[in-house]
Amino acid sequence: MDIKLTTGRTLHILEEESLLQALKRHGIYLVASCGGKGICSKCRVRLLEGKSKIASTGKLEPREIKTGITLACQTFPEEDIFIDIPKESKLVVGEKIAISKSTDLIELLHSLEAEISPIVKRITLNLPPPTIHDNISDLERLKRSLEERDLIGIRFSHGLVSSISKVLREAEWKITLRYTDSHDAISISPAGMDGDRYGLAVDIGTTTVVIYLVNLTDGRLIDVGSTYNSQMRYGDDVITRIIYATESGGLDELRDSVVSDINDLLAPLIERHSISRKDIESVVITGNTTMTHIFWGLNPAHIREEPYIPTINFFPRWNAGTAKLKINPLSPIYTVPCVASYVGGDIAAGVLSSKLHRSPEIALFIDIGTNGEIVIGNNEWLMAAACSAGPCFEGSGIKHGMRATEGAIESIKIDPETFEPVFNVIGNGQPMGICGSGMIDAISEMFLTGIIDQKGKFIREVKTGRIRNGVDGPEFLIFSRDGRDIVLTEVDIENILRAKAAIYAGVSLLLKEVGFGLDAIERVYIAGGFGNYLNVDRAIILGMLPDLPKDKFSFLGNASITGAYLCLLSKELRKEAGIIASKMTYLELSVSKRFMDEYISALFLPHTHMRLFPTVKKLLSK
Amino acid sequence: MDIKLTTGRTLHILEEESLLQALKRHGIYLVASCGGKGICSKCRVRLLEGKSKIASTGKLEPREIKTGITLACQTFPEEDIFIDIPKESKLVVGEKIAISKSTDLIELLHSLEAEISPIVKRITLNLPPPTIHDNISDLERLKRSLEERDLIGIRFSHGLVSSISKVLREAEWKITLRYTDSHDAISISPAGMDGDRYGLAVDIGTTTVVIYLVNLTDGRLIDVGSTYNSQMRYGDDVITRIIYATESGGLDELRDSVVSDINDLLAPLIERHSISRKDIESVVITGNTTMTHIFWGLNPAHIREEPYIPTINFFPRWNAGTAKLKINPLSPIYTVPCVASYVGGDIAAGVLSSKLHRSPEIALFIDIGTNGEIVIGNNEWLMAAACSAGPCFEGSGIKHGMRATEGAIESIKIDPETFEPVFNVIGNGQPMGICGSGMIDAISEMFLTGIIDQKGKFIREVKTGRIRNGVDGPEFLIFSRDGRDIVLTEVDIENILRAKAAIYAGVSLLLKEVGFGLDAIERVYIAGGFGNYLNVDRAIILGMLPDLPKDKFSFLGNASITGAYLCLLSKELRKEAGIIASKMTYLELSVSKRFMDEYISALFLPHTHMRLFPTVKKLLSK
Repeated sequence: MDIKLTTGRTLHILEEESLLQALKRHGIYLVASCGGKGICSKCRVRLLEGKSKIASTGKLEPREIKTGITLACQTFPEEDIFIDIPKESKLVVGEKIAISKSTDLIELLHSLEAEISPIVKRITLNLPPPTIHDNISDLERLKRSLEERDLIGIRFSHGLVSSISKVLREAEWKITLRYTDSHDAISISPAGMDGDRYGLAVDIGTTTVVIYLVNLTDGRLIDVGSTYNSQMRYGDDVITRIIYATESGGLDELRDSVVSDINDLLAPLIERHSISRKDIESVVITGNTTMTHIFWGLNPAHIREEPYIPTINFFPRWNAGTAKLKINPLSPIYTVPCVASYVGGDIAAGVLSSKLHRSPEIALFIDIGTNGEIVIGNNEWLMAAACSAGPCFEGSGIKHGMRATEGAIESIKIDPETFEPVFNVIGNGQPMGICGSGMIDAISEMFLTGIIDQKGKFIREVKTGRIRNGVDGPEFLIFSRDGRDIVLTEVDIENILRAKAAIYAGVSLLLKEVGFGLDAIERVYIAGGFGNYLNVDRAIILGMLPDLPKDKFSFLGNASITGAYLCLLSKELRKEAGIIASKMTYLELSVSKRFMDEYISALFLPHTHMRLFPTVKKLLSK
Repeated sequence: MDIKLTTGRTLHILEEESLLQALKRHGIYLVASCGGKGICSKCRVRLLEGKSKIASTGKLEPREIKTGITLACQTFPEEDIFIDIPKESKLVVGEKIAISKSTDLIELLHSLEAEISPIVKRITLNLPPPTIHDNISDLERLKRSLEERDLIGIRFSHGLVSSISKVLREAEWKITLRYTDSHDAISISPAGMDGDRYGLAVDIGTTTVVIYLVNLTDGRLIDVGSTYNSQMRYGDDVITRIIYATESGGLDELRDSVVSDINDLLAPLIERHSISRKDIESVVITGNTTMTHIFWGLNPAHIREEPYIPTINFFPRWNAGTAKLKINPLSPIYTVPCVASYVGGDIAAGVLSSKLHRSPEIALFIDIGTNGEIVIGNNEWLMAAACSAGPCFEGSGIKHGMRATEGAIESIKIDPETFEPVFNVIGNGQPMGICGSGMIDAISEMFLTGIIDQKGKFIREVKTGRIRNGVDGPEFLIFSRDGRDIVLTEVDIENILRAKAAIYAGVSLLLKEVGFGLDAIERVYIAGGFGNYLNVDRAIILGMLPDLPKDKFSFLGNASITGAYLCLLSKELRKEAGIIASKMTYLELSVSKRFMDEYISALFLPHTHMRLFPTVKKLLSK
C-alpha cells in the first residue's frame, strides 16, 4: 500500500506498520514524545483519503477527529491513503540555538588562568635517512629520534605502524608526529604539510546536540553546529531511551543516530572553513550519564534500575575510530567524567565553567534541561542531586507544549480585569504552541490574576469564557484561530507544578543535607536550555526557584558545552573536571522519604509554606 | 570453458586465465616455486583432451611434451579440456613434521632456570555488590577492588568495558580478571568458570607453519600442528612473496593466507582437547622479518631494497583481534623481535633456545631453512648475517628437487666401481624426487667417486651410462621407471654449490669479522628443516659446514618454535629474547666485496683452499 502526501511524495507502507513507523522509515520524523505509544498525542496527521484502522484516538478532540486528524502511531492504513502532515507535528532539526561568543570563551579560559595545553601535542623531527651502516628499522629510527628529544615510551598502534614506512619515505624523513599527553602516537605526516590544529567540543543533550569547532592553537571558536538529538524519534527523555536501548538492536540504533548527528553537524563546518578531517586532533564529549553511555555503545540498562549504577563514570581515553566519528580514527576523545547515574559529565563540565568550585562562596548550580540537576558547594565541597523534573519545559507531556523554536508562545501577560492574554511568539508568526518560558509566565500570571488557586486548579467563579472543559478536563484557552486552539489544561498545570516542585525540593533537600539555610547561598547559577530567556521573577512566583534577590542569579546558558570547550584546551582544566566529578557527593533522591516530603510541600503555588517566598507573599497581598 | 579432472571434478575457467590460476581459484594448489612464471617447471599437468594455447614449455623434455605434459602456468585452454594432475605436482599440505617432546621442552625451560610467568595473569575478585549508598560505577568498583590488591593502572579497552556490566551481574560480583603484564585487561569472567590457561607458540616459516598449544600453568606441550605455509602458492622464497605483497591486494592476500593456516591448524587442536578459544590467553609469534611483517599486514617492500630496512623490529604488544586470530580478540601477541631485514625473530628465538647467549664458549649457530642465517657469539657479544642460500635444499630450483616428504630420496650411496646408486626413499615407496639431504649425499658421493670434479662438473671419462645429456645439459640419472626419470643435472649441482658456498662464506666472513679462526669455535648448533637428518660428514665433504670435529655439532631442529615456546612461558626469557635481538650486530653481506671473495672461493668442492678441509683432503687421498 502507498501513502500519498500533500507535498506530492508517495511512500510505501508495509503490512502491520503504523503510519508513524512508515514515515520514520522514509526519513520523515514526527514529534513522538511518548515513543509511539498513543499517549502524547503529538504525531497528528490529517487523513484526506483512504481507509485506515485506528487503534486509538488518544486525547484527540471529537472536533479534531471530525476533520480527519489521527495519531500516526495509532493509524494502520487498509488501502492507499492521502494525508497532510501539519507543521507542528514535524520534528524540526538543524535549528540554531543561542551560542557563546568566541571572545567570551577565550576570556573565560584566561580568567581560569589556564595555559593552552590540548590533549594532542606535536613534534617535528628530522630523521637521518637509513644507510647500509645505520640500518635500524623505521620505527626504531623514529623512536631513537624521539628519545634524543626526551620523548620515551610513545606507543604506536598497529594502524599507525602500517603507514609509517610510506610516510617516512614520502616525507624524505622530515616528519611531524602527533601524540597524546598519555603518550599514544596518533599520526605521522610530512613536516610542513601538517595543517592547523583543531578540536571538537561536543555536548550531547537529551534534546539537543551542540558542537564547537575550536582552534587549538589560540582557543578561537571557529564555528558552531547544533541540532536536535535524533534519538528523539525514540522518546523524549532518558528513560524512554534506556528502555529502547535494551530492546534488540536498540542500543546500536540510538548510538548510530547520535553519532550521525555529530558527523552531520561537522561536515558543513569543515567544508565552510576548508579544514581537513585529519587536522581535528582531539574531541571532548560531555553529556548526561545515559547519553554518554549510549554514545560509547554501553548498555545503560542498570542506570534505570535500583541501585542505579552506571557502567562507568571515568572513561578511558578512547578514540574517534571506536566512536565512529569521521575524523582521524586515532584522535583521542576525552569524555568529561560523570558523577552518578543521573548526574553526568554535563554537570561536571557546567560546574567547571561556572568556576564555583574555585570560590569559597557557597553557590547553587541548577541545570534545567530535559532533566533537572542541582549542585551546591564551593571550593571545598560539592554535593549534587538530580530531580526527575521531566522534559515538560521542553514541551513534552504538555498538550500544546513545544520547544522554544519558531511559533512558540514564549511570554504571556494576562489582563487582571478581562483575563485576556497577550503574548509574544518566537518569529512573530502564527502561534503553534507554548514553550517553557511561556508556560512559567502563563501559570504565574494565572495565579496572580486569580484564575488558578494555590493548587493550580481553575477557580470556576472567574468570569471568563476562556476557562472551559476539553477532552482532558478543564483548560484555559490562550489562542484560537481556524479551528486550531492553544490551551493550557489543568493536567498541563499539574505536570508543570510537578516539575517545578521536583526542582525546588531538590534545592531544599540539598540545603538541608549540608545544614545550610537559603541565606547561606551567595550565588545561583542557572544553566540549561532556558538560557537567558528565563524570567527569574516569574520562576520565583511559580516556586521553581528559591526566593532570593535577583542579583544573586547568573545565567550560564549551555554550561556543559562551555566546560567541554575548556577541557579541549587545557590539561589543568581536564584535571579539574576530574576532581569536580570525583569530589562531588551524589544524593540519590528517588529513594528518599525526605525528598518526597519536600516535593509534596512544593506542589503548591509557590509553596505550602508561604514564608519561604516573602516576595511572592508581598506581591499577592497587593 | 570447463576443466575436467580425472578425479571426476569439473571446474570453470575464465577467459585469459591460466590453468594454474583456475586451479588455484578452485582451491587446487600446484607446486609453483617460481610463482607461475614458467621457470621452475614444477606445475606439470597432463593434457588428455582438448585444445590449449601453450605460451611456453619451460624446461620440459620433448619426451614429456609428447605424452601431453604441460606447465599449468603456461597453459591457456581454448576449449573444454580434460586433464590429469600427477601427484608430484600437487602442493602437499597438513603434513606432520618432526616435533619436540613435551618433556624435553619442560626440561629446557628448567635448565634455563626460568620461572613460569606467562604474559597474562589472573586475579579473582569478590566485589561488594552495589547499594544505594555504595553506588560507584561498575568499572570504578572493579578498579577499587584491584587497588586494594595493589593493582593500579590496569587499562580497560572499549570492547571489554562494553561487556562488564553484564558479566559482573551474571557472576554475582565474583569474577576472574585476566590482564597482561603490561597492565591491559583482556577478559572478565565469572570466578570458577575460568578454564585452564593456554598459550599458542607459532613459528611462521617461509615454507612451514608450526603451532604449539601449551598449558601455561605447567608448561606442558598439549599438542602440535604443522602445515606448509599457504603463501607458497605465490612463490617459494621471501623475495617472490615481497614482490607479490607489493602488488595491489597482494599483501592482504598473503596475510590472510598465513592467518588462515594458523586458524586452520588451531581448530582441530582445540576440538581434540575440548579447549575454549577464550582460554587461549596469549600468543608468541616468531618468523623471519618478512614473514613477521606479512603476518602483521605491514608492507615488506623496503626489506628488499637497499639499504634493506624493515618497518619494525621490536613489535608492540598487539592483539589477536588485530591479527585476526580466532581466539579472545584481546589476547596479547608477543612477537619475538627481529634483528634486521634478513635476520628475524626466528633467529633470536633460535639463539635463545640454544642457550649460546648464556655461555662464555664461542659458538656458531646455523639455521638452514628456506634461507640461511648464521650467528656467532657467546654471552658477551653476538654477530649475525644472512646468506642468500635460497630454498634449493627444500627442492626449489632443482629439477627433481622436493621437500623431505613421502617419496623423497633422502640418502644415496654410489658404488665407486659401478657408479650405480642405492638410495632410501621416505615412506619406502616409489621415489618422486630428491630432497635436501639426498642432494648433499648425492653430490658428496659423486665427488668422492670421481663422477664430478671440484667444480661440480661431470667428468666425461667416467664409464657409466648414467651420465647423459638432457634438455638442461649434462645430468646424472639416479632413477628411471615408466618414463619417469629422476636426475641431478649439472645446473642443479651448480645451484647446490651456490647455496653451500653462501653458507660457508657467511660463516667464514663472520669469523674474520670478529677476528677468530675456526679453532675458536667450541660448538656448532644446526637449526632448521634438516633437523637430525643432516649427515654432518657429507655436509663437510660438500664444504657446506666447516671441517670441525663431529662432536662439536648439535642439532636443534626447529629452534625457532622452541624459542617461541620459551617466550610463551617466561617473562625473563621474553626479556632475554629482546636482549639477544638488540645486542646482535647485523652484518649485511649482500653489499660486501669480501663476502663475494669468500663466496667464490667456496664454490668448489669442498673449497678452493683444501687446507681448510683437512678431513676431506685425507678422505680423497685414500
